[in-house]
Amino acid sequence: MEGAAVDHLAHERIRAQFDVEAMKVAWAGSKHAVDVADRMARLVASDPVFKKDNRMMLGRKELFKNTLRKAAHAWRRINELCLTEEEASMLRIFVDEPGYVDLHWGMFVPAIKGQGTDEQQKKWLPLAYKMQIIGCYAQTELGHGSNVQGLETTATFDPKTDEFIIHSPTLTSSKWWPGGLGKISTHAVVYARLITDGKDHGINGFIVQLRSLDDHSPLPGIVVGDIGTKFGNGAYNTMDNGVLRFDHVRIPRNQMLMRVSQVTREGKFVQSDVPRQLLYGTMVYVRQTIVSDASKALSRAVCIAVRYSAVRRQFGSQDGCPETQVIDYKTQQSRLFPLLASAYAFRFVGEWLKWLYRDVTERLQANDFSTLPEAHACTAGLKSLTTSVTADGIEECRKLCGGHGYLCSSGLPELFAVYVPACTYEGDNVVLLLQVARFLMKTVSQLGSGKKPVGTTAYMGSVQHLMQSKCDVLTAEDWLKPSIILEAFEARAIRLAVNCAKNISKFPSQEEGFSELSADLLEVAIAHCQLIIVSKFIDKVKEDIQGHGVKELLQILCNVYALSLVHKHLGDFISTGYITPKQGALANEQLRFLYAQVRPNAVALVDAFNYTDHYLGSILGRYDGNVYPKLYEEAWKDPLNDTVVPDGYHEYVRPLLKQKFTVSRM
Amino acid sequence: MEGAAVDHLAHERIRAQFDVEAMKVAWAGSKHAVDVADRMARLVASDPVFKKDNRMMLGRKELFKNTLRKAAHAWRRINELCLTEEEASMLRIFVDEPGYVDLHWGMFVPAIKGQGTDEQQKKWLPLAYKMQIIGCYAQTELGHGSNVQGLETTATFDPKTDEFIIHSPTLTSSKWWPGGLGKISTHAVVYARLITDGKDHGINGFIVQLRSLDDHSPLPGIVVGDIGTKFGNGAYNTMDNGVLRFDHVRIPRNQMLMRVSQVTREGKFVQSDVPRQLLYGTMVYVRQTIVSDASKALSRAVCIAVRYSAVRRQFGSQDGCPETQVIDYKTQQSRLFPLLASAYAFRFVGEWLKWLYRDVTERLQANDFSTLPEAHACTAGLKSLTTSVTADGIEECRKLCGGHGYLCSSGLPELFAVYVPACTYEGDNVVLLLQVARFLMKTVSQLGSGKKPVGTTAYMGSVQHLMQSKCDVLTAEDWLKPSIILEAFEARAIRLAVNCAKNISKFPSQEEGFSELSADLLEVAIAHCQLIIVSKFIDKVKEDIQGHGVKELLQILCNVYALSLVHKHLGDFISTGYITPKQGALANEQLRFLYAQVRPNAVALVDAFNYTDHYLGSILGRYDGNVYPKLYEEAWKDPLNDTVVPDGYHEYVRPLLKQKFTVSRM
Repeated sequence: MEGAAVDHLAHERIRAQFDVEAMKVAWAGSKHAVDVADRMARLVASDPVFKKDNRMMLGRKELFKNTLRKAAHAWRRINELCLTEEEASMLRIFVDEPGYVDLHWGMFVPAIKGQGTDEQQKKWLPLAYKMQIIGCYAQTELGHGSNVQGLETTATFDPKTDEFIIHSPTLTSSKWWPGGLGKISTHAVVYARLITDGKDHGINGFIVQLRSLDDHSPLPGIVVGDIGTKFGNGAYNTMDNGVLRFDHVRIPRNQMLMRVSQVTREGKFVQSDVPRQLLYGTMVYVRQTIVSDASKALSRAVCIAVRYSAVRRQFGSQDGCPETQVIDYKTQQSRLFPLLASAYAFRFVGEWLKWLYRDVTERLQANDFSTLPEAHACTAGLKSLTTSVTADGIEECRKLCGGHGYLCSSGLPELFAVYVPACTYEGDNVVLLLQVARFLMKTVSQLGSGKKPVGTTAYMGSVQHLMQSKCDVLTAEDWLKPSIILEAFEARAIRLAVNCAKNISKFPSQEEGFSELSADLLEVAIAHCQLIIVSKFIDKVKEDIQGHGVKELLQILCNVYALSLVHKHLGDFISTGYITPKQGALANEQLRFLYAQVRPNAVALVDAFNYTDHYLGSILGRYDGNVYPKLYEEAWKDPLNDTVVPDGYHEYVRPLLKQKFTVSRM
Repeated sequence: MEGAAVDHLAHERIRAQFDVEAMKVAWAGSKHAVDVADRMARLVASDPVFKKDNRMMLGRKELFKNTLRKAAHAWRRINELCLTEEEASMLRIFVDEPGYVDLHWGMFVPAIKGQGTDEQQKKWLPLAYKMQIIGCYAQTELGHGSNVQGLETTATFDPKTDEFIIHSPTLTSSKWWPGGLGKISTHAVVYARLITDGKDHGINGFIVQLRSLDDHSPLPGIVVGDIGTKFGNGAYNTMDNGVLRFDHVRIPRNQMLMRVSQVTREGKFVQSDVPRQLLYGTMVYVRQTIVSDASKALSRAVCIAVRYSAVRRQFGSQDGCPETQVIDYKTQQSRLFPLLASAYAFRFVGEWLKWLYRDVTERLQANDFSTLPEAHACTAGLKSLTTSVTADGIEECRKLCGGHGYLCSSGLPELFAVYVPACTYEGDNVVLLLQVARFLMKTVSQLGSGKKPVGTTAYMGSVQHLMQSKCDVLTAEDWLKPSIILEAFEARAIRLAVNCAKNISKFPSQEEGFSELSADLLEVAIAHCQLIIVSKFIDKVKEDIQGHGVKELLQILCNVYALSLVHKHLGDFISTGYITPKQGALANEQLRFLYAQVRPNAVALVDAFNYTDHYLGSILGRYDGNVYPKLYEEAWKDPLNDTVVPDGYHEYVRPLLKQKFTVSRM
């Protein structure tokens, strides 16, 4: 992407067997998407305010202040250039630094949109759109995360004043973690137990002002602050994740978000006729963006590791020739190429999820809730699977870069530290998989009832065939057929599910069985989710795809993705009796051939992500491959190199060398 | 370990079915070892200079200076208290902060001891012992890590002056990574290509002075500095990993380390009669300490995760009762207890490696090199396996602590960031596994030749039996028999190895087969190494172990370790035909029963590690379980909380809220 003078990877780029520009379109979704991303990425990369390579050297306060500066500058640029919403959101992505604005736009605004009445939206949204108020999303508490129904904060209606009293009755009820809360937000959507007339009506959202709009000081009854340093040097330390306690803070009744339930002037709790399920639509939306972010994060890590693996040489030098590029080692390929394939797989399943969200939204508007449970399970499962694989995959890419991957200038430590919370937020990954498993067990139990499984569980309709069929692979090439791959994943998924359902039924109660076998249930859910991703990748490759060699390469990546999973989960496939050990060995053999086909295209396949060096933020992943001189140059910028003799030498090293405080003994 | 006033985990400790004090002895190895560790841990914990919970808030320079201070203070205390070598080394462990002294004692001194002549040792060791000089180990270069034979730095003998000229001919020949080099070391053992009379004699070590002993400035011809920020907030940023370039630096001939080869006054290269193999003895030693460190790091992470899982409650509240402790969930147990078992397994295999090192040393002194290849492969493999599992295991423990594990005050981010380099240093884990695999392939090829496999490969002598036998497990209880477990691991390991050897033989050349199938070879090596750990754990449990219930609990952990691996690698066990899918399911069933047996003992099993709160460095892992109040207290110490209104508000937030630079559009 850069117009570099030298290109140490030119010899790699020449080898590519496909049209990289066309692959960029396939990756981004459309020519338009490539163009917008391109323009926004360059806009950010060329603006000195958005510089980010000095992040590691700043203390927390400086780091935070600099993020405020970037946020203000981004807002100014967005307005000056009259950017569209699409462009603005792209620009924020390329600024690539967590900050309070993420929560304002990503959680506060959607919460009001989704849970506020028309009147409430009319009042609050214009203020939020202009950023005359800045909001966050205060749900999680010190003692309560996954179990939202266990939140302790109370909102008690006082009919005398027509107000709610927001209160933190215990230490563990302190709000804890909300981004943007610690130092910046003026407002929050606070989730609390709604109490009227002594009765607890469960959790509801309330708009609460936290800080004065004049001098930013916390309002009376409110204690608010930052929760402290988090994983990584920069990472989420640019964000003011906060703690918040209420001491009987009063808000007007109309600041309860009242779209699905209301409290009347008299203090009566009323359910509206808007179905609660509408709220799940938002969850589908948020999780779909998380899947899309997973492909982004994983592809960045893979881009760095692939380029550096092509630059780095080690061993194998003969007769004065250069050593072997580490990307040529099969051990490197067998770890790296499945991740490259996963990045593509997650990208396409993410695109499909966007469609699913639109589909669900349209159906909800038509009062059709029939696909919601399936869509909900599907997005929950994909959120869990893609974020777990991405977190581990980034760290694997770091290890694939050897020692130099441990330097912050490689970009990988930061990428890891900033990414891993995705495994926990918006639903802990294990809790989500159990939800998926519960849904699958229910689907299995209804198979005989005539109720046809829909969407991504449609394959379960063929239960009889799938429980009895055998894989008919005879040669390694047979494993290239999409129909064979698909049936293998379907058979594995349904057999694991049916077995597990049988085992659960042996327990005195279903709940006991579910709880005792929950570790097995996780595996059932994973098998189902992997099937979804494989099948959506297969569907993608069937589409009409433009550009020389593009479809062929995507087919190869699809096969790499699927067969590497067959190898990794061989125990599942064999023990459920669908494939034989011999067929498993053939899959592994085919995988090796596929790696050889990926190899000459590897660098071009990561070029197709179209990331600027600024966005990648990695010396090892530089487009021009000019790694060593730049690593060397970068080292000297460390504060420790400000002086030749380090601070502390005279007090703590010289006396030691000069035997000034040793007792002669050793 | 702490004499706490409250103990929120008392109800857990009462449930333990074994004698914790006796388990401490089993873990540490002896009563003496418990006592020394206890005294040193308390010494460090009670000394304000060794405070470490402020580490995250310091900039790089302050952080580094503080480490120098701690190192000097430790040295002073060691001398004042006339500590033994064992005590001093324990004290350094509990200071728990990477620093230049680690390399001085751990690499510089051993290099001189191992590679220096008696005369050289007599000259340099007393200086090093008194720390009148401080040394490091300068091997790795910017362009060369794993491939030591590819190092580019040259040491050219100049017969005119009887000196070596040390030189960095290229940018990639810059020394890069050595700890202690960047700002502190006065001397280094530098590895360079020895050139005499135009002939290259390969890599040798040279003692080179880097800095003036008067004013610490680099000597002429030397450019030296720090390589920059690394992964994590504190972690290895307390260490001055360095870069070093030589411009024709001259050193006297007698500073070449000459134990195994010499250069004469005339410039003649001479091999001494000391066998080169002696050098491998040092490698066995260093890697054995790394295995021991792995059990330490993993047990710390597990201790934090187990205690916090007993404190944390989520879901399952009924009728106003408290929610369920997360440690009671099977999903938590199935991720956490195998790691707990691994910590014990690594501890015992580490102890066994100490014995192996003594055995090898005695044999070497008697010129018996017969066991060296096996011992070398075994330590290489165990280093690789234990460090990989530990790195991943720490991160898994962090995830098991949910959101709060992401806070630095949980101690887990730091533990991870400071630990992961162990996967790369002293032999990249993948490169090491390939060495093991190469050794195993050789052993397999010699099986027919009458040469009996020794040590940890002795089982391969029963190849005929192991290739044909079948597992005779009929019930879940059968999986508790050590002989059954052992044979399953032996059969899996040898079958994978023999299959792989067969597949290699189908290639035109062995080297090609080895390279093409290297990903499979990794799996062969892992299976062999897991067998070693399982068998040493089984041996340990057979020993006479004191204390009520101790042996029983270790037996349970041993079974958890083995059966969780059977489950994880089910594909191996089934596809090699040794166990049936049904037997695999029984292993999994037994595993659940074992988890239920571990559960009431879990907290006591981590108490047995005997770690102080200071050493653990984790609010989530506090001995007294008083997590929430302390998390809350800690938050306010963050620099961001110094002021209520953050720095940057007036410049970057207020103008935004007050619409001072927005163009009205949205």
